[in-house]
Amino acid sequence: MAPQLDGYFQKVDAMSDAFIERLRQAVAIPSVSSEAARRPDVVRMGHFLADELTKLGAQVELRPLGKQDGTDLDLPPVVLARYGNDKNKRTILVYGHYDVQPAEKTDGWDTEPFELTVMPDGRMCGRGSTDDKGPVLGWLNAIEAHKAAGIDFPVNLLMCFEGMEEYGSDGLDDLINAEGKKFFADADAVCISDNYWLGTERPCLTYGLRGCNYYSVEVWGPGADLHSGVFGGTAQEPMTDLVRILGSLVDTDGKILIPGIVEQVAPVTAEEEGLYDNISFTMETLHESLGSKTTVFDDKKRTLMARWRNPSLSVHGIEGAFSAPGAKTVIPAKVIGKFSIRTVPNMDIDQTNAAVYRYVEDVFKKLNSKNNMKVYAQHTGKWWVASPNHWNFTAAAKATERVWGVKPDFTREGGSIPVTLTFEQATGKNVLLLPMGSSTDGAHSINEKLDKRNYIEGIKLLGAYLHYVAEEPMN
Amino acid sequence: MAPQLDGYFQKVDAMSDAFIERLRQAVAIPSVSSEAARRPDVVRMGHFLADELTKLGAQVELRPLGKQDGTDLDLPPVVLARYGNDKNKRTILVYGHYDVQPAEKTDGWDTEPFELTVMPDGRMCGRGSTDDKGPVLGWLNAIEAHKAAGIDFPVNLLMCFEGMEEYGSDGLDDLINAEGKKFFADADAVCISDNYWLGTERPCLTYGLRGCNYYSVEVWGPGADLHSGVFGGTAQEPMTDLVRILGSLVDTDGKILIPGIVEQVAPVTAEEEGLYDNISFTMETLHESLGSKTTVFDDKKRTLMARWRNPSLSVHGIEGAFSAPGAKTVIPAKVIGKFSIRTVPNMDIDQTNAAVYRYVEDVFKKLNSKNNMKVYAQHTGKWWVASPNHWNFTAAAKATERVWGVKPDFTREGGSIPVTLTFEQATGKNVLLLPMGSSTDGAHSINEKLDKRNYIEGIKLLGAYLHYVAEEPMN
Repeated sequence: MAPQLDGYFQKVDAMSDAFIERLRQAVAIPSVSSEAARRPDVVRMGHFLADELTKLGAQVELRPLGKQDGTDLDLPPVVLARYGNDKNKRTILVYGHYDVQPAEKTDGWDTEPFELTVMPDGRMCGRGSTDDKGPVLGWLNAIEAHKAAGIDFPVNLLMCFEGMEEYGSDGLDDLINAEGKKFFADADAVCISDNYWLGTERPCLTYGLRGCNYYSVEVWGPGADLHSGVFGGTAQEPMTDLVRILGSLVDTDGKILIPGIVEQVAPVTAEEEGLYDNISFTMETLHESLGSKTTVFDDKKRTLMARWRNPSLSVHGIEGAFSAPGAKTVIPAKVIGKFSIRTVPNMDIDQTNAAVYRYVEDVFKKLNSKNNMKVYAQHTGKWWVASPNHWNFTAAAKATERVWGVKPDFTREGGSIPVTLTFEQATGKNVLLLPMGSSTDGAHSINEKLDKRNYIEGIKLLGAYLHYVAEEPMN
Repeated sequence: MAPQLDGYFQKVDAMSDAFIERLRQAVAIPSVSSEAARRPDVVRMGHFLADELTKLGAQVELRPLGKQDGTDLDLPPVVLARYGNDKNKRTILVYGHYDVQPAEKTDGWDTEPFELTVMPDGRMCGRGSTDDKGPVLGWLNAIEAHKAAGIDFPVNLLMCFEGMEEYGSDGLDDLINAEGKKFFADADAVCISDNYWLGTERPCLTYGLRGCNYYSVEVWGPGADLHSGVFGGTAQEPMTDLVRILGSLVDTDGKILIPGIVEQVAPVTAEEEGLYDNISFTMETLHESLGSKTTVFDDKKRTLMARWRNPSLSVHGIEGAFSAPGAKTVIPAKVIGKFSIRTVPNMDIDQTNAAVYRYVEDVFKKLNSKNNMKVYAQHTGKWWVASPNHWNFTAAAKATERVWGVKPDFTREGGSIPVTLTFEQATGKNVLLLPMGSSTDGAHSINEKLDKRNYIEGIKLLGAYLHYVAEEPMN
């Protein structure tokens, strides 16, 4: 039987001004985690959340994480909260982050970045509006609307809100792993609202993310940078070797030339073949977000497969070479090429590293160079794919259809949200990514916004999801 | 008949403390041309030279050069001076520069860079000691020693000392070209003392320099930098195309892979074949200055030919890509590769550019990329080779043998001193490079020094050269 949600929905609509006011207060706190000088603001934002949650009746803890790596700076605390402790209810663990990317008006913002500005067309502009203060407050607003409407909250809610997501989530993995069988022990499923719809009209549920293995290739020979007039033609140049290595990794159409990578990729199933056609995505939208038509493929299906389920290799740059405007006739003594591979099922991190090392070493050996070469992974992170048939997803799909009137797209993403896999592994439970914002929100850009519609309907969606989750049969 | 030089030499030795004191005063003026804040010091250095020259009886002019390109900053003046105006004497035009490279004690200097420090082993450490204040003062000291010894100065001396050499010689070419048939009109030959011996023991005369064509290859596609998670595999990446282009230009052993370059190189004559064996140069010295054994060749002859008479291609770096330490998963939207070709006789600038453009365009076309590509020369400068059989060189060789007791090496250099060619073209006269310092002076490095021996014997050499020049029959 479908849950009775009309009372809740009406209350959310009735309280929408208060909810926007709460978002305004949150955006006004410039909780930029990457800037040491802003650390007190990040901490203040954590306390703001803790206070709001306490007022709503949650049990709240501000968990210290110690010092930031390599500094004397205290990390902002993780807000751990519990709302409800009824053994007869399911328990849902939700994650979000209360820190934001840097922003200055002078970066090109049309409005003050730390003043939420509601435009006539419904855009609510401000740093953190969509990433991730809007979604985090969505959970608080859902609790408040239930209380105000006198509707029993359908689940026990565990909350984990961190303040360092935009700067590497320093310290969080340890906490999640430590609390997997403690604070998070009775979680039946996990829900993260920190990503975006594929477009602007169709909501989605996300069940997969690519991983990322990031590599460095160092080539060095001379004792110091050289003058190309004096040494050009007489010394073997590290840059010559490096660009030949980097030029051997991938072709213009993104085909990875390293043996042993694509061989690991899971075959496309017949079921999967049918998935792509229905996804709300067009090449026009892609060209628009790309700012050009320089795509590898001209069709939607191969493009989505390339983004979601196939690995890709990008060359990011070179450290140690001349990188400024103008002309400098230097022969760099040591250069470090950077590239990464986005990984997908069923790629294995170690097997992928081994294939990369073997290939790069082979290419270098064939150059017959007297220079030295070293290739290594700077960091690795596994791909993540959940079962979209799990009751957690079924509940979210029903809630989406109820709130938005359409079936959601079931999507994967090309990027990584490492905490997703951490939660899955620490709790052993299904993790759902349930986005609130849309593809045009500009999370890390100037003029970041959350549409008022997405915020208010998003609050309804998060609450509705919890009702459906409470009723969904276990599978 | 050999000139009578003993009196002059004795006077130089007797006055050596005063000459070192003059160098100390010059080094104490931090005439760093690349730093706007030091511009008054550069101007002060120009005035110091002008005052010293005036006291010695020269006619001196401080010639303004207008504003520095793209700034409101006055360029330091060129010191133009004439010493002697006897129609029965030959007239020699000498060039040097009175500005220096930047230097801070904290860069790693063992001594204060702007305090000349004479070490027990004879090293005189200080910024500008060898590049180029020592040689410039060498001419002044030669005049003074002649006056003090009561010896008639053997030639008319025209002097051109600039204050922007270390920052591109802004404005100088125009002045030289304008004065070629005016202030410099009666020059019979040109002598520049602004380079170095090939090693530390054998003096040299330099009769050739390579030219330099500096290229940019721009590749661009997307409208802005992209996230490799979102776009990796779906967009054609400019870096992928660029590293493939850069990787196609030259091999590990320095072989230029662009057709139409080596084809332009002058064949080795039988006479040239015999030149290299006698040059005072060892692979051990090269390995020492390189800081490694990563040379292309293991023998002296091919190494000297590679540096002096063959073209080379160096890849310097990439603008627009990720160049910092650490990891960033960016797909750069626009990247600019920088490389240059050192040119030699009989390479033609336009023909070389055309070969480069054609090749890079071909390589890019074969990539079948949707990105855009543009290749162009940032700047070009022709090679220079003078006749070492000219009386200007013969005189310098005799003077060298008289002062140092050995025949000089006749050398070419791999780098460029563009003003050399400008003087040759503006005056139509033979240009000689007559170095004072040795290969270990560290001109642009920390602990720059000029050996006391090289300074004092160098003053003798400059004076002796003028005596031999006065007597040498025209050829």
